[in-house]
Amino acid sequence: MIVALAGGVGAARFLQGLIRVVPQRRITIIGNVGDDIEFYGLHVSPDLDIVTYTLADLVDPVRGWGFKGDTFHCQDLLQRYGYKTWFNIGDRDLATHLYRTEQMRRGKTLSAATTSIVSRLGLDVTLLPSTDDLLQTYVLSRRSRMHFQEYMVRRQTKPKVKSVLFKGSDSARPAPHVIQSISEASGIIICPSNPIVSIGAILAVRGIRAALRKTKAPILGISPIVGGKTVKGPADKLMKSSGIEASAIGVAKYYRDFLDALMIDKVDAQLAPQVRSLGIKPIVTQTLMKTMADKIHLARRATSEFRH
Amino acid sequence: MIVALAGGVGAARFLQGLIRVVPQRRITIIGNVGDDIEFYGLHVSPDLDIVTYTLADLVDPVRGWGFKGDTFHCQDLLQRYGYKTWFNIGDRDLATHLYRTEQMRRGKTLSAATTSIVSRLGLDVTLLPSTDDLLQTYVLSRRSRMHFQEYMVRRQTKPKVKSVLFKGSDSARPAPHVIQSISEASGIIICPSNPIVSIGAILAVRGIRAALRKTKAPILGISPIVGGKTVKGPADKLMKSSGIEASAIGVAKYYRDFLDALMIDKVDAQLAPQVRSLGIKPIVTQTLMKTMADKIHLARRATSEFRH
Repeated sequence: MIVALAGGVGAARFLQGLIRVVPQRRITIIGNVGDDIEFYGLHVSPDLDIVTYTLADLVDPVRGWGFKGDTFHCQDLLQRYGYKTWFNIGDRDLATHLYRTEQMRRGKTLSAATTSIVSRLGLDVTLLPSTDDLLQTYVLSRRSRMHFQEYMVRRQTKPKVKSVLFKGSDSARPAPHVIQSISEASGIIICPSNPIVSIGAILAVRGIRAALRKTKAPILGISPIVGGKTVKGPADKLMKSSGIEASAIGVAKYYRDFLDALMIDKVDAQLAPQVRSLGIKPIVTQTLMKTMADKIHLARRATSEFRH
Repeated sequence: MIVALAGGVGAARFLQGLIRVVPQRRITIIGNVGDDIEFYGLHVSPDLDIVTYTLADLVDPVRGWGFKGDTFHCQDLLQRYGYKTWFNIGDRDLATHLYRTEQMRRGKTLSAATTSIVSRLGLDVTLLPSTDDLLQTYVLSRRSRMHFQEYMVRRQTKPKVKSVLFKGSDSARPAPHVIQSISEASGIIICPSNPIVSIGAILAVRGIRAALRKTKAPILGISPIVGGKTVKGPADKLMKSSGIEASAIGVAKYYRDFLDALMIDKVDAQLAPQVRSLGIKPIVTQTLMKTMADKIHLARRATSEFRH
């Protein structure tokens, strides 16, 4: 079993390649729930849905989230009822949130609801939320504390971030099978996601980081930072504000306690010796994924590490 | 203040005329909640919404319910999640149910949520649900008991009805202002709605029928049965199965204990003496409403009774 720790868009793109290289039933994805948020009384899980929609070939290819060609008619009316609609939810997308919310109101866990959604959308991968408990990513600026989505979507990553905190990390327990899948994996991949708020929110669940340190499975990361810049999203900004260098080296250091190998882009080839000096095997390759061939190449290169 | 007891489409069409004859702020509508039903965890109030959307000029003119030109994209996906989607809910329409449900989950009553919806959609009428408590219309056929919407929408009124019952009528109390509005009205109109399941479900709330008997206000009904047939919906079938003649006379008898006058259509002119013999003043006029002019004519004729 291959286990992948995944955030949103970057991870989903890599996983599109992975499911073409490894049978879906042999893939377990541990997803980020730190971005989860309630809108209109509905439980929205942006990262879990991005992964699911992308792998099911239903995602909007331009936006990278939501359903292909979705409309926003419900949202137009919600505005009329006085809701602030800065977080876009399409009409088809709403169905997922309605279903998830109803399942959870009936007593099902987020895990169980996620399993149903994944299966209903025709996938055979296992997608586990990192936790079924409340764990929310908050960003602290000089003036205020805000939910990650408010920072990311509503304020377009403009506020200067002082630090990031994970509300609930004191008590959130790993969801069923999370620790077991890490222990029993034949290989583990840290997807090219934001180390602080995506992978970081998964690692903030007690027991997950320890399980990664302890597992016998090789753990391979893919740097989301290429040439000192993030491919997408605010990873570079947030790394700096967390006191971490915004580079493949910063990524290597952040994961140093459990990482065996790190894939870095060709443009960062000169960083390979420094990665090696941290006790992590550097793998220099093309990490930018523009085409499906790029994604498959990256997945093939990553999984080849698990066969040695 | 003019008070109108209202069901769905038939009532809404009449009320479109009424708001053109009487200022909205002088109109209180007591709406039917017996048809309310939960779908996807959302509280749906079909009759309240038909009245609101129609008066706000937002209703789909062909269907008579839902928003003009609404799409059904969410519903398409809900099917994929295994939901039975025999009750059509459009994408814009969903916003109303999301808003209502969230308001109610936060502790607001259906009355308060309804007041907000009416005001947000730009209306100045008062729309009161008959009750804030659970009251649901069920239909009994030989084989089973089903919610009215299941009979009406899912099974297209095909099952042979033995009787109609109002679940919760033992305990449902009138919503705030319902009894007061009946007592203090200058005139009361029983809209051309289904006497059994629309008006009947309002009368099933304890205290409402008694208040109608007691009020000093003149009470005028409009027969929904023309030439022995219902204008729309299953009123005639349901009257027969409730042991009531499907005619303006059956309507007059059903409302006899509180009705002062009944508007009947020209085609039923010959029934006028029989209506009069029940102690009810017959008003023969054109009750079929095809154009806005027809609606205004009917509203004008109805309200003229309150000025004598």
